Amino acid sequence: MNASKTCAVLGANGFIGSAVTRAFLGSGYRVIACDRSYDFSALERHPNLETRTLDFLDAVAVREALHGSDLVVHLVSTTKPAGSNENMAFDVETNIVPTLRLLEACEKEGIERVLFASSGGTVYGVPQRLPVKEDDPTRPIVSYGLTKLSIERYAWLFERETGLCFISLRIGNPYGPRHADMRQGVIPVFMRLARQGLPLRVIGDGSTVRDYVHVEDVARAFLLAAAYPGRERVFNIGSGKGRSVMDIIARIEAIHGSALRVEHLPARPFDIPAIVLDTNRAREHLGWRAEIPFEEGMRLTWEAM
Amino acid sequence: MNASKTCAVLGANGFIGSAVTRAFLGSGYRVIACDRSYDFSALERHPNLETRTLDFLDAVAVREALHGSDLVVHLVSTTKPAGSNENMAFDVETNIVPTLRLLEACEKEGIERVLFASSGGTVYGVPQRLPVKEDDPTRPIVSYGLTKLSIERYAWLFERETGLCFISLRIGNPYGPRHADMRQGVIPVFMRLARQGLPLRVIGDGSTVRDYVHVEDVARAFLLAAAYPGRERVFNIGSGKGRSVMDIIARIEAIHGSALRVEHLPARPFDIPAIVLDTNRAREHLGWRAEIPFEEGMRLTWEAM
Repeated sequence: MNASKTCAVLGANGFIGSAVTRAFLGSGYRVIACDRSYDFSALERHPNLETRTLDFLDAVAVREALHGSDLVVHLVSTTKPAGSNENMAFDVETNIVPTLRLLEACEKEGIERVLFASSGGTVYGVPQRLPVKEDDPTRPIVSYGLTKLSIERYAWLFERETGLCFISLRIGNPYGPRHADMRQGVIPVFMRLARQGLPLRVIGDGSTVRDYVHVEDVARAFLLAAAYPGRERVFNIGSGKGRSVMDIIARIEAIHGSALRVEHLPARPFDIPAIVLDTNRAREHLGWRAEIPFEEGMRLTWEAM
Repeated sequence: MNASKTCAVLGANGFIGSAVTRAFLGSGYRVIACDRSYDFSALERHPNLETRTLDFLDAVAVREALHGSDLVVHLVSTTKPAGSNENMAFDVETNIVPTLRLLEACEKEGIERVLFASSGGTVYGVPQRLPVKEDDPTRPIVSYGLTKLSIERYAWLFERETGLCFISLRIGNPYGPRHADMRQGVIPVFMRLARQGLPLRVIGDGSTVRDYVHVEDVARAFLLAAAYPGRERVFNIGSGKGRSVMDIIARIEAIHGSALRVEHLPARPFDIPAIVLDTNRAREHLGWRAEIPFEEGMRLTWEAM
């Protein structure tokens, strides 16, 4: 238990944020849950939970929220992969710059470490081999991924200068029960359409492969990274298995008990054909691996809807 | 001759900028020389030269200045390698963001291509081999270099989206006659101290190796890149030869005709021990190589002071 440690979670109302908040509370941390939303109903009440509404772009408010914390989990992003190429200056201005201001605030407030939600699906671009390892070439084809990668690299410089430990988790495609609220992610969207008897709209031919990882496994990775004493700074967090969109549909059909109608939309130029993450580093150094089997995770997500 | 083409030079009063402006004028271009300074006395009058004072951070003024140009040479930086790690957020905010706004303006104004002054001395970090090639690992240890590299990579995405050609010249350590005014660069600083009879202040033991390239050779590389029809986007621009600080001092002693006093200052953590650029790509694709021999370039610089 870590009753004496306080963790500030930035983006606590999000899909990963609410799971991380629960995981840290469950492990004995005190948590300052920060979000720009006033509605913290995604989080259950807990004696060690404090909530704060703030704008990540407000450096003063961010610093105030960090006061007294030991570590920070940074889950904020102002962009999504799909639209990020349309306004790269905005992406840089509202993600890299405030993250660097956050690091400055962390240094001033004596924070020990920052855990950052990076993107396993976009920092590598089109991988030269699968599964992709952390030290493989990184050539993002979306601004979202280049911004995540740039943050990792500026943070590495910042750690050299100041000693502030900054650990990046390059997360695959997270899925899980509460995602259903969010209207993003192929799994909850398809499950909702299946329940409504509507056709599933597949971008491209359905062959694109992703590495789906349950959000509770992701939250546990943050918990392990919080206590990790070693020198690695970047970890892939995925299942290590690739599944196509058609695999997802077949799994939903198995749960739903009947065939689903599918409509195909044109492929998008920024979608990479396949990504699967090599997670050996996380296993060796964090003692982490994805524990929730895909079939069970899908069933739990379906039942929670 | 390119009498029909107009080139906007951003940072035209700087050391490289004034040489680039002269080179483009000499090649028949019309040049819009832009700088935040009002004093364009570094540039000789020329019938094809127009000057504009503007702030690179003012996106409206930048776009107005580009109107009617065919290409842009972007030489602006708000930071220097030495101090850049002290305020990385400022570095990102005042270099990456306005460069992306510049690219948006270029797209709207129908600019064909942008030539960017990147940094051969800092984008690679500590090279694993010498001379270093363009595709070698890039692991900058100063924010200045990471910012140059990030600009290259966002621009690559921007070109994928819009077709705007963006070529980066990773320049070594430029030197030459007019640098003497600038109070930066080991060569003019040492030459001035030698003339004044003052001791030369060497950071570290004087063994650090750099790739010195004459500024007129650099300007010619921009001219060749302006007309380059191929697909390469990043070029090392250096002499391909490494020279230590003690080599520089020996050369100045040979010109000056007497031994110089040297004082040693503590080494700095952000100085890499040695960098030499492999310039084969520029030779093969641009038809460029450094033509001014170091001994002659040093003599000309001395005589111009």
